[in-house]
Amino acid sequence: MGASPDPNRCPVSATPYQQLEQEWKRLHAFRGALALLRWDAAVMMPKGSAAIRGEQLAALETEHHTLLTSPRISRLLDRAQANAQGLDEWRLGNLREMRRQRDHAIATPVSLVSRLARATSIAEVKWVEARRANDFAIFSPHLAEVLHLVRDKAQLLGQALKLAPYDALIDEFSPGVTMTDIDAMFKALSRRLPGLIRETMALQAKHPPLPISGKFPVAKQRQLVIEIMKTVGFPFDGGRVDESEHPFTEGVPGDIRVTTRYDADDLFSGVLGAMHETGHAMYDLGLPREWRDQPVGRDRGMAIEESQSLLIEMIVCRSRPFVHYLLPLLQKHFGVSGPEWDPENVYAHLTRVRRGLIRVDADELTYALHIQLRYELEKKLLDGSLAIRELPDAWAGFMKARFDVRPTTQQEGCLQDIHWAVGSFGYFPSYALGSAIAAQLFEKLRGDVPALDGQIARGEFAGLFGWLRENVHSLGSRVSTQELLKLATGKPLTAAASLRYLEGKYLEDPASRSAAA
Amino acid sequence: MGASPDPNRCPVSATPYQQLEQEWKRLHAFRGALALLRWDAAVMMPKGSAAIRGEQLAALETEHHTLLTSPRISRLLDRAQANAQGLDEWRLGNLREMRRQRDHAIATPVSLVSRLARATSIAEVKWVEARRANDFAIFSPHLAEVLHLVRDKAQLLGQALKLAPYDALIDEFSPGVTMTDIDAMFKALSRRLPGLIRETMALQAKHPPLPISGKFPVAKQRQLVIEIMKTVGFPFDGGRVDESEHPFTEGVPGDIRVTTRYDADDLFSGVLGAMHETGHAMYDLGLPREWRDQPVGRDRGMAIEESQSLLIEMIVCRSRPFVHYLLPLLQKHFGVSGPEWDPENVYAHLTRVRRGLIRVDADELTYALHIQLRYELEKKLLDGSLAIRELPDAWAGFMKARFDVRPTTQQEGCLQDIHWAVGSFGYFPSYALGSAIAAQLFEKLRGDVPALDGQIARGEFAGLFGWLRENVHSLGSRVSTQELLKLATGKPLTAAASLRYLEGKYLEDPASRSAAA
Repeated sequence: MGASPDPNRCPVSATPYQQLEQEWKRLHAFRGALALLRWDAAVMMPKGSAAIRGEQLAALETEHHTLLTSPRISRLLDRAQANAQGLDEWRLGNLREMRRQRDHAIATPVSLVSRLARATSIAEVKWVEARRANDFAIFSPHLAEVLHLVRDKAQLLGQALKLAPYDALIDEFSPGVTMTDIDAMFKALSRRLPGLIRETMALQAKHPPLPISGKFPVAKQRQLVIEIMKTVGFPFDGGRVDESEHPFTEGVPGDIRVTTRYDADDLFSGVLGAMHETGHAMYDLGLPREWRDQPVGRDRGMAIEESQSLLIEMIVCRSRPFVHYLLPLLQKHFGVSGPEWDPENVYAHLTRVRRGLIRVDADELTYALHIQLRYELEKKLLDGSLAIRELPDAWAGFMKARFDVRPTTQQEGCLQDIHWAVGSFGYFPSYALGSAIAAQLFEKLRGDVPALDGQIARGEFAGLFGWLRENVHSLGSRVSTQELLKLATGKPLTAAASLRYLEGKYLEDPASRSAAA
Repeated sequence: MGASPDPNRCPVSATPYQQLEQEWKRLHAFRGALALLRWDAAVMMPKGSAAIRGEQLAALETEHHTLLTSPRISRLLDRAQANAQGLDEWRLGNLREMRRQRDHAIATPVSLVSRLARATSIAEVKWVEARRANDFAIFSPHLAEVLHLVRDKAQLLGQALKLAPYDALIDEFSPGVTMTDIDAMFKALSRRLPGLIRETMALQAKHPPLPISGKFPVAKQRQLVIEIMKTVGFPFDGGRVDESEHPFTEGVPGDIRVTTRYDADDLFSGVLGAMHETGHAMYDLGLPREWRDQPVGRDRGMAIEESQSLLIEMIVCRSRPFVHYLLPLLQKHFGVSGPEWDPENVYAHLTRVRRGLIRVDADELTYALHIQLRYELEKKLLDGSLAIRELPDAWAGFMKARFDVRPTTQQEGCLQDIHWAVGSFGYFPSYALGSAIAAQLFEKLRGDVPALDGQIARGEFAGLFGWLRENVHSLGSRVSTQELLKLATGKPLTAAASLRYLEGKYLEDPASRSAAA
């Protein structure tokens, strides 16, 4: 049978901690397989196969859960904890994150895990169908089933972690963040944002950009996106870019799958969607390589994840230097020319503030309001004060009250996001947190890399990602979200940098800047 | 936590047999996930991700193996066997197949399973690389690793099943078939085939077809293939067709993934590849629906699988009625016209006998010789009488001796098939068995469905697949390969029908038939 030892089996002399690393190596492989099953379901799978995929996801998630909550793991965690004195900070962090994962898992019974996997797998397909048919009724019974199961989960998690049910859900996505933090942030933002939006819109109304229109063939947009992603450093020998209903990033470092969606009438939405996801992907790829298959080597939750995607999409891509890099590419791929393609005019488009209906197409100023809507509605859905059948009207009512626009279709309304279909309640606040974190990181980054603007204008992204890798990506989950931000910027998380950034960018008089250019 | 019971958990009152069905439902979900991981690796995955995919496949196969060989399953199998008197023939068959799977699995230690999964996953990628580079040396160390592990496995399986090592490998793919059966078949075939090939080639040389050439854009070939597959009855809401280095069929009924490969210079190879795989897919889809997630509902091994693909590709698609159906499609998609597109000329192309280098492009007459080559070489590789470094020369030598042609590249030689890369030693004989079974089934089918030719010429495939579904597909694994053939044709398996079919088809004088048309 050969001399080489089984790589899955530890030598008898392995310490409890080393045995745990082996267990998590296996769990990591399961996570990677699950990620692929989900990616395929959204990008490749025939529609009629949803029920079968649901069974597969349920079987694998159940097994993952069984492995994670096994008595063997609990025993090893206790023994490793008792012998933790020799471990360095990475291994200590790893042990802490292992325990965290186990604590979360053990609070949710395996039956609930498998029912959720099955329900969300079907709900996701029904969500796509409902969007196509513009018919909320196709989706609502499946959302009801998912909500019912998520509510059970929130209850059980809350009891185990001694948190309010909704806080327990947030904790899964953004460890350590609570409703109190989120409320404080929304409070600070809502003191200034509505005024800032009004002032910006008034300023922009005085200098409306020339309209940009035309047909931008999807095949050429694909080529453009691939070219930009290559320049940015996305490794196509360990990743792909495809199309799906809703852009997302899946997979594990080493096999990262990014998606976007193209619109032949809108050149920017496909590119910016891809760049948002590339921000996620670059974070995942920058995580510490030697800890790839361990908990401490994972991303530090969704608030940081979203900070990375929003920093690229909103701050970097909607900037003058990026426009200078982008324009020659647009000329090359689409042969664009004329005054509407003047850099200042394109920049004006990319920073145009509008009270629009679609979150993923929203500008930086109104974005937080989109999140607030979802945050408020999902809390009500969970505590039962809003019924699912009331959701379309509640959504439309909020949009009318705060945005003065009302969705005319369900795709523009409460069917626009995939999150609830896949059971991700408690996720949306990560976007608002991420946006604030992005601004705070960028403020420091800009100070540390004074040549940044010129580099980006020349299509050089090594300075940008070098800083992010050193100060954010490479930390993995070794420290908490808050600690990470303090290490990277010297300050705790507040909305201050975000407001400074937005005021500086949007209250600049476009006419004066244009004249100076 | 809700009133609905966990669907994964049996009621306490479930019989041991019922509990086994539940266990296999879970194993079926694992198999489906594994199938998707393999499909993705061959069709979608970035090349650099092979090692990661290897880890994922190893983890899932190891877990599948652990579940299948658990003491719980053994206990339930014994208890169900002791209480088998109440079971109907499907359940009895299911119990027998469950035990068969367990016996095979328990003979192979889990460490070997995971090492094989990892080694084949890497070898597959290296095989693709080696083909592209026309360099056997890129592949050979990985083939050596796979061979080393397969040899260990054959040894262990043989001991457990009381079979010769190579017979034990065959038994995995085609239950109950042994080297004795295969040798008898090759003996009968080789008594007649060489002469038949000579006579046919002499006959065809007298009436050479007009050459068919031109460029057939791959995008249009894709559309053609999809149109034919739809007509044949392939359900695109539960399946896909894509492209890969080597055509294959993966997945589970309900999510069947077929691939082919297109050549812009050769209109027929992509279509015929796709139809070969569609033959597999239609078999899988015709398996008894209510037993889809149970062993008795699976295909009856690879000899029957290949009989279904070869019956479609070789017997149906290379026939005059199919040419009559196909020609208007070729006119529609490619605008073909001229005397070389006369039905008899196209038929002459599809039945042209040549001593060619590529198995998947081979005609019906020389096909068995391609298989014999692989059968002889893999037996020698396994027993050590042929070293891997000698393989390219041994291959070339056989081709020169029997075909009077010599491969000039490795793609045309021993790098043409994926089978050894993925560890499928003992698989090749299934093709020769399948070819003989196909002819025997078709002889009976033709008698039972007298209107068949006219139906196919009109693009009606319900008569063909109706018969196959009733007499082959719907039996699943309820009976043995030999029993299935007896039930379907009234006769045991021999090469007789195959030789009758080949003589009738190839010794017909093309000139006389053409004049009569």
